[in-house]
Amino acid sequence: MPPRPELRLDPFSGRRVVIAPARANRPEDFAPSQAAADEAFDPFAEGHEASTPAETLALRGPGSVANAPGWRVRIVPNRFPALECLPNSFSTTADGAGNDENLFVTETAAGIHEVIVECPHPETDLARLPLAAVTDVLRMYRDRLRMLAHDPRLMAAVIFKNSGSDAGASIAHAHSQLIATRFVPDDIARELAQAAAWLDRTGRCLYEDVLERELEDGRRLVLDESGYVVLCPFASRFPCEMMLLPRRHAPRFEATPDDELSTVGRVLKTALTKLNRVLDRPAYNYVLHTAPFGEVNPQAPPCYHWHIEIYPRTTRPGGYEWGAGVCINPVAPEDAAARLREASEVD
Amino acid sequence: MPPRPELRLDPFSGRRVVIAPARANRPEDFAPSQAAADEAFDPFAEGHEASTPAETLALRGPGSVANAPGWRVRIVPNRFPALECLPNSFSTTADGAGNDENLFVTETAAGIHEVIVECPHPETDLARLPLAAVTDVLRMYRDRLRMLAHDPRLMAAVIFKNSGSDAGASIAHAHSQLIATRFVPDDIARELAQAAAWLDRTGRCLYEDVLERELEDGRRLVLDESGYVVLCPFASRFPCEMMLLPRRHAPRFEATPDDELSTVGRVLKTALTKLNRVLDRPAYNYVLHTAPFGEVNPQAPPCYHWHIEIYPRTTRPGGYEWGAGVCINPVAPEDAAARLREASEVD
Repeated sequence: MPPRPELRLDPFSGRRVVIAPARANRPEDFAPSQAAADEAFDPFAEGHEASTPAETLALRGPGSVANAPGWRVRIVPNRFPALECLPNSFSTTADGAGNDENLFVTETAAGIHEVIVECPHPETDLARLPLAAVTDVLRMYRDRLRMLAHDPRLMAAVIFKNSGSDAGASIAHAHSQLIATRFVPDDIARELAQAAAWLDRTGRCLYEDVLERELEDGRRLVLDESGYVVLCPFASRFPCEMMLLPRRHAPRFEATPDDELSTVGRVLKTALTKLNRVLDRPAYNYVLHTAPFGEVNPQAPPCYHWHIEIYPRTTRPGGYEWGAGVCINPVAPEDAAARLREASEVD
Repeated sequence: MPPRPELRLDPFSGRRVVIAPARANRPEDFAPSQAAADEAFDPFAEGHEASTPAETLALRGPGSVANAPGWRVRIVPNRFPALECLPNSFSTTADGAGNDENLFVTETAAGIHEVIVECPHPETDLARLPLAAVTDVLRMYRDRLRMLAHDPRLMAAVIFKNSGSDAGASIAHAHSQLIATRFVPDDIARELAQAAAWLDRTGRCLYEDVLERELEDGRRLVLDESGYVVLCPFASRFPCEMMLLPRRHAPRFEATPDDELSTVGRVLKTALTKLNRVLDRPAYNYVLHTAPFGEVNPQAPPCYHWHIEIYPRTTRPGGYEWGAGVCINPVAPEDAAARLREASEVD
């Protein structure tokens, strides 16, 4: 019986960490990860449905049945989850009897950890899928978020992609992941606090103010299309980092209407294609930030915009990044944006 | 003329980022870093003093002269600094005229960015140096920090090591780096805030309370020797992460007396040697956290302990780590500590 994953609070920094021990304390647990090691077998390909846990949601053609071929996008529980899957019971425990000071706070790391398999055939790069397929992936993000938003036990969800071994991927087949938690992750909480402080101070939405300035200025702009903008953030942590966001006030990605999904898909595909041109198909992460779920958080933030952050992983963060919390980025976002604007939109 | 490095505040997260463009916007700036690429020439070896900027401090044998052979440890400015070197002039500017709201805050990233070359011969691993040499390195850390602490323009310094390409190193020769800034880096600020909150709540020092509990419990203890403790932190972010800290109340590393430096050296060398045994010479970072400089910060934190955090870099952080701010660690610190305790102290 493997130990259960635990969510721990670091007493020194206040940071949350998930301790997710592998099934046993085998020596391999201590070895470097063998990313994309076994490419001979693709567990995510159509026809290999039995090599994943049973799907929780899939986009399927008429007449196809669950956990069999015939799907376009498929969402399955992660086989090696960082979180103990709901609906298992929750328990919050402090470490040690009589520790009423909560020096070592731990709770079962319960939530949802799923994989979104983005295509049935063995393609590794979302940007190379046809627009309709990219739109399908976004539709599945949206639909799954809508389902989870109604679970009062969940506070927030983050959808992210690790593409390439340097970005943390262990499987090459194009996929992304969803982690839904009973807490609001640090980075989302920081953004909410910044936006709330800006609203307090100016009476305006931080995201709209930044957008207005960026559109006027233009130096960091990559795309501005049909109500969606891609820019290289002013304080980018990574070379060619990008941020995709809607112009209009839209705190929640899951509220995106059907007729806008293909616009988001087109803008995302274009941004990633340009990135591939400029950095020669880099490893990258992207992360969808959407407001915490409303049912749990009735005072939903009045001035948040959902957005997708894209981090190319061509640099190797070191001690200053991990130990001081400050990233050093060798490429000015203005230079990155100029290169990305010039790059072809065609693969 | 290369653009000057800039310190930028991200309007969305409040994070500081250093934008440090390379000397020109060459295409190479956009390519993956060629870590440890050119091992044929070692710019840090004795006899190659001309390949670094002139030293700011060195531990030298009698009769030897600056920037020539005869040194044991040598501190030089980083040739590719993330910060514009003091004593150049400071200027704080907001981006754009009339921007009294400070949406895009930027200032010259001025400070000190130096390299501590740990040995004259081409050794890559601090742990393999004799104890006297490790002690020399720590003495130079201390002495350089003491010098910088008197500069009223500086707020804080972080000394860190990137060992191995996966940990961000670009040169194999054993070295560490010092970055001193006019701000307190995020991670240090968080620790100070946590310690202050604990003091408020309990009247006690957070570090001493954690140490007391860890020594009683023992499950996360790696070493306990002559007043210094190494443990695997309760909420470790990395497999086999360690923290080295003094038992006694000691907020500042630079106050370490001469007769304790060799104890710190022995404990550090032992911890790193054990790490090499357990993870087979992994890439790793370590980061020295010491209280911000007192002259600038007269209310020095009453309950901080300097410490060294050691992060083995065998996992590849992905989108959840970088985009949600939550690390997922597959190895429980209790298991890591058991392995490290058992591991031999002999290389």
